[in-house]
Amino acid sequence: MKVGETVKKTWEISRQISDASTGQKNQALEEIASRLKQHEEKIIEANRVDLEELKKKEGYSKAFQDRLFLDGGRIEAMADGLKDIISLNDPVGEVTSMWKRPNGLQVGRVRVPLGVVAIIYEARPNVTIDAAGLGLKSGNSVILRGSSEALNSNRALVEVIQESLEAVGLPRYGVALVEQADREAARDLMRQDRYLDVIIPRGGPALKKTVMENATVPVVETGEGNCHVYVDESAEVSMAVPVAVNSKVQRPGVCNALETLLVHESIADAFLPEALEALRREGVEIRGCTVTRKYHGEVKTAEEEDWSAEYLDLVLAVKVVKSLEEAVNHINTYGTGHSESIVTSSYRSSREFMQKVDAAAVYVNASTRFTDGNVFGLGAEMGISTQKLHARGPMGLESLTSTKFIIYGDGQIRE
Amino acid sequence: MKVGETVKKTWEISRQISDASTGQKNQALEEIASRLKQHEEKIIEANRVDLEELKKKEGYSKAFQDRLFLDGGRIEAMADGLKDIISLNDPVGEVTSMWKRPNGLQVGRVRVPLGVVAIIYEARPNVTIDAAGLGLKSGNSVILRGSSEALNSNRALVEVIQESLEAVGLPRYGVALVEQADREAARDLMRQDRYLDVIIPRGGPALKKTVMENATVPVVETGEGNCHVYVDESAEVSMAVPVAVNSKVQRPGVCNALETLLVHESIADAFLPEALEALRREGVEIRGCTVTRKYHGEVKTAEEEDWSAEYLDLVLAVKVVKSLEEAVNHINTYGTGHSESIVTSSYRSSREFMQKVDAAAVYVNASTRFTDGNVFGLGAEMGISTQKLHARGPMGLESLTSTKFIIYGDGQIRE
Repeated sequence: MKVGETVKKTWEISRQISDASTGQKNQALEEIASRLKQHEEKIIEANRVDLEELKKKEGYSKAFQDRLFLDGGRIEAMADGLKDIISLNDPVGEVTSMWKRPNGLQVGRVRVPLGVVAIIYEARPNVTIDAAGLGLKSGNSVILRGSSEALNSNRALVEVIQESLEAVGLPRYGVALVEQADREAARDLMRQDRYLDVIIPRGGPALKKTVMENATVPVVETGEGNCHVYVDESAEVSMAVPVAVNSKVQRPGVCNALETLLVHESIADAFLPEALEALRREGVEIRGCTVTRKYHGEVKTAEEEDWSAEYLDLVLAVKVVKSLEEAVNHINTYGTGHSESIVTSSYRSSREFMQKVDAAAVYVNASTRFTDGNVFGLGAEMGISTQKLHARGPMGLESLTSTKFIIYGDGQIRE
Repeated sequence: MKVGETVKKTWEISRQISDASTGQKNQALEEIASRLKQHEEKIIEANRVDLEELKKKEGYSKAFQDRLFLDGGRIEAMADGLKDIISLNDPVGEVTSMWKRPNGLQVGRVRVPLGVVAIIYEARPNVTIDAAGLGLKSGNSVILRGSSEALNSNRALVEVIQESLEAVGLPRYGVALVEQADREAARDLMRQDRYLDVIIPRGGPALKKTVMENATVPVVETGEGNCHVYVDESAEVSMAVPVAVNSKVQRPGVCNALETLLVHESIADAFLPEALEALRREGVEIRGCTVTRKYHGEVKTAEEEDWSAEYLDLVLAVKVVKSLEEAVNHINTYGTGHSESIVTSSYRSSREFMQKVDAAAVYVNASTRFTDGNVFGLGAEMGISTQKLHARGPMGLESLTSTKFIIYGDGQIRE
């Protein structure tokens, strides 16, 4: 089926998904969870085909293979993820406010599904289930465009989802897979503005750029994170070292990991030797400014491009700054607006940093690694938005909704 | 100055606008209001040049000239508009919610300005002042791209705005005018994604299409309104007639005016003769379906394209439907998702229409003409969004803001 046909088919039945009750939507998610386990073998079989195809090709890292790999435990985890989504409140139908006008009209706003949500993502089959679960729970139909390397796995998973939808009396096209793996198909998808309400690209800067250039559908950008920790002159070293180390090494390959450490010059003597040594012990390669290099023999020289780099690896840029203002300017210039943290014991510095740093998540005295829907208490997330429009930061169920104005009258006309 | 330079200059100082206090922002608006009156003659002079240029060309309607025209009264009205904006609550800094996590982290969301907002609009100088006022009050810097016919008027107005900003200690580039009138400049503006946080096109379908095709900056679409009134079988005719007539004729040239009237077949006998006669008396040309044509001698035949038409004129399409469901399907198929109203005395019909119609504003028993920021009680508006992402319906100050997550810790790290 052509991309346009798949999208149109989904759009045509999307009102049925939007109008489904919370009970019916939860029932669908229950059904998917139980069928995932029932069809475990078939799914693992399909996944094995993908993995074997991958082995014939070159240039795929161990990490890539690991993300694609499925076994009983991982399928169980997908089902558990759906159970978590079932336990979340349904955002649809919430009247967020309502008021009365002088002419007697009652005006309010109610939360409604976006409609049809498309997601373009990497070779991670768990995203197929997460995205379908979050989309359906918030009343949206979902178009999935996974990467070619996961095609067989995704086919098997979407088959389970579609059978489950039918089993609870919902249309199977509530979730659909775009099977075409070529770039032309992706571009085609981005231009289905008649039928799609939003497209969410999850992937690297190249995908993001392609989507920005080509999409006529509204886009929510996710994921790029050049994150900073700024160690203020008043910081407690015993707090600053673990926050910096944790932000960098706890899981270096993800978007909320630390990429550049900024250090106030007055605390450099007390903080840097200990911090650099602790980071080295964790296997982190340091690229520092001239001042930083004085504090440790193994620090390489940071180039201009290091300030913009999202390493996603055990590499860290370090810069000594003269003031909080310089730190804030550095962050607002080089950062991607993801997660930024200050370590300080000064009330004033905490206020200034909070106010002036322009990012999705701004921290005082905590690791940047906390930026996550579950950790924040929003439940599972569709991604972490780094744009300012519509949704910023971890995108929970609410970010998959819109609102509409509802107005109750008694025959009012405008004079 | 090239478009890119203007935008960059504004972006560079935009933090100063974002960080300005409510007092300072209000002071800037006060200053603009008083300088508008001081420089009234200069502004009218500039406007006269635009109007004279217009007279040399052909094809401009009286209505077009009227929208461009400025006099003392209209400049006074602009100043009054700014006073209204001053009286609105500043949305920036509002902590919309805050909660505590099991690990002691305090997580909240605070409202922040979008940053730099661009608006592309028609030859209406009052929009220059409204957009600057709303943008500044919500902490945004504003790039204005008015149409070429209003260039001299806009230059004079922006000069007043920039002098006022400087007079209160804010950077003059907080509001900037793109003077280039060509299409290339508009396209250039739409692609400044490095510096612009949103672009709002206010204009017809052609502008909207160009922006959708070309923009890499996030877009909020405004204004297209193919609005419907549905007269349910249970409607009171004495309410339905004035609601239909008011929706159509009170101001036919605006986006919330009625374009297609849908009538349940059971009430057609009682409603249509009276309604069609009342509409005819107001000079409305009727284009009806076969059934409608039976009720009035002067009804023309509606073609398929009439159901999609936004006439913005004293023309109305009328269709008799067999059920509420058919009405809802018609609206969701042909409508632009702007303003839709049901006239009914049935509780059940009111609930069903409210739930199933997918539009920015859904009414029971009231004229569609009420969709307006001021009328809804939101204060002045930047436009009426017909997209679902970010802002839907009248866009008040809140729609010009984003949120950021703020997280307060005591040294928490992620396990």
